Amino acid sequence: MDIASIKAAAGRLAGHARRTPLLSSPFLDEIAGRRVLVKSECLQHTGSFKFRGAYNAVAALDPDTRARGVIAFSSGNHAQGIAAAARLHGVPAVIVMPADAPQAKVDGTLGLGAEVVPYDRATEDRDAIGARIAAERGLTLIKPFDEPMVIAGQGTCGLEIAEQAAELGVTTADVLVCCGGGGLTSGIALALEATAPGLRARPAEPEGFDDVRRSLASGEIERNPALSGSLCDAIVTPQPGNLTFPIMKRLCGPGLAVSEDEALRAMGLALKHLKVVAEPGGAVALAAALFRGNEIEGDAVICTISGGNVDPAVLARAIGA
Amino acid sequence: MDIASIKAAAGRLAGHARRTPLLSSPFLDEIAGRRVLVKSECLQHTGSFKFRGAYNAVAALDPDTRARGVIAFSSGNHAQGIAAAARLHGVPAVIVMPADAPQAKVDGTLGLGAEVVPYDRATEDRDAIGARIAAERGLTLIKPFDEPMVIAGQGTCGLEIAEQAAELGVTTADVLVCCGGGGLTSGIALALEATAPGLRARPAEPEGFDDVRRSLASGEIERNPALSGSLCDAIVTPQPGNLTFPIMKRLCGPGLAVSEDEALRAMGLALKHLKVVAEPGGAVALAAALFRGNEIEGDAVICTISGGNVDPAVLARAIGA
Repeated sequence: MDIASIKAAAGRLAGHARRTPLLSSPFLDEIAGRRVLVKSECLQHTGSFKFRGAYNAVAALDPDTRARGVIAFSSGNHAQGIAAAARLHGVPAVIVMPADAPQAKVDGTLGLGAEVVPYDRATEDRDAIGARIAAERGLTLIKPFDEPMVIAGQGTCGLEIAEQAAELGVTTADVLVCCGGGGLTSGIALALEATAPGLRARPAEPEGFDDVRRSLASGEIERNPALSGSLCDAIVTPQPGNLTFPIMKRLCGPGLAVSEDEALRAMGLALKHLKVVAEPGGAVALAAALFRGNEIEGDAVICTISGGNVDPAVLARAIGA
Repeated sequence: MDIASIKAAAGRLAGHARRTPLLSSPFLDEIAGRRVLVKSECLQHTGSFKFRGAYNAVAALDPDTRARGVIAFSSGNHAQGIAAAARLHGVPAVIVMPADAPQAKVDGTLGLGAEVVPYDRATEDRDAIGARIAAERGLTLIKPFDEPMVIAGQGTCGLEIAEQAAELGVTTADVLVCCGGGGLTSGIALALEATAPGLRARPAEPEGFDDVRRSLASGEIERNPALSGSLCDAIVTPQPGNLTFPIMKRLCGPGLAVSEDEALRAMGLALKHLKVVAEPGGAVALAAALFRGNEIEGDAVICTISGGNVDPAVLARAIGA
């Protein structure tokens, strides 16, 4: 993974992925005490940044391999990204998905024409399930984050952040990235290293599921004690990836973690002031920008809203938060 | 008002207004039975298209006149547009606003530094109030729609629709526009006439407040029987404008009207599938695209979401709709 692979991904995505807006509001600036720029990937196709990496990975397969189909395991957003990318290429997709995934994500995946295979997040090993089905049907497994073509695809978001921030006169700032396994964070970090050296990626996570923050602090890969029970389901992963962690260790600033209540409040403020829908896991970076200002330096901060696929009941909670 | 004034407005707005995205979702296409492209002006500064016309009108004033300040009467979105435009130019703004305007709009206007003067929508004449205060303080009154510089500013939305639709291969379609006094509708109609003759503007309104639809049908300016009581407060005006109606009569296709329930359902679908917040009045064009397909021709339809400034209780209703 390097800037060349990210630029190649940008070429594959041209005309297919949306260039999502970098939004802002004077009301959010006032809350944060500094300028806040919000890369709104909830407006990406399928409602999350995952479409970028998924499309790049499917597009990069050789045609004969691609024609047999692809398989993915995902809590939902990678699933929809793979389903949409497969459909756009006219090939089949199988998604191995946690049985407790939000219904909105299951419906979104089915609606995009994929086959969904459920598994128990607490007792079953999704990697093993995915590998078995892939072998049986001749499908290519596309991992959600520890996969070079996926990291390169997510990195295109970083290219856009660098360009859009520069257009607004911001060339020095922390870039807070909603972080699960680290695909988006490491991709953005690589893109910024090459195109905007004054911008520094920093992972944002939910408290209690801050494996990346702890791993960056200790210098070793650390695991989360639990793998379910977070409202921020989209970014709960066991541990940082073997490919993504070395990139993050080399390039990222310290991680930040926010409470579920802070994520819900950030969702409510995104609805009110930016007019966009964030899912809880997609709101942790905005929450860190708004409520953890004492851990951030500089006159401006950039953050991602990484996705907006949320069940109505949780959205209703955010409106009341 | 002509294409030259709209292109001049585009020059004034460059670097100040957002080029809002033309969003879409395969799930909305399926509901509508045709391709649906959604110009998402809820993502504009201040949460509605009104920033365009307001900024253009303030920017076009001669500097001495502008320095004395501006005044506007508005149910809320024009208010916020004027407040933001005045603040960006460093001049004072007074807003005459209905006493029953949504609190989100009052707060938004106050938060942008304007002075708010409330009036009773049912018993008082906002035009007279605005004219009196303007004379007393030497302010320039900027009308919400029947004002050439405002129409020209709103027309820049039409220039973008023409360009963005062409990029997606759509050059023949109805363009459904959320319509109150007709500033956005007439501005878009003028822009499309000059730059995309295969696209035709059509006003969309709430049932019971469909003065523009009835005026287009009769050929004469018709009034609404009531001026309050609609959930779609942003686009309830007494009648089409003296400047906007002749433009709409010459260029627009027949109007469409939707129920409040349809507007709420469209809001819910915009949240779910586009990840954007629409206010009820800002959702009537999407509602018409989705639920009045038998009144529309062609393989594709374009519609505006004109604004997203909605009180939490109404947003919660939309989530449950």
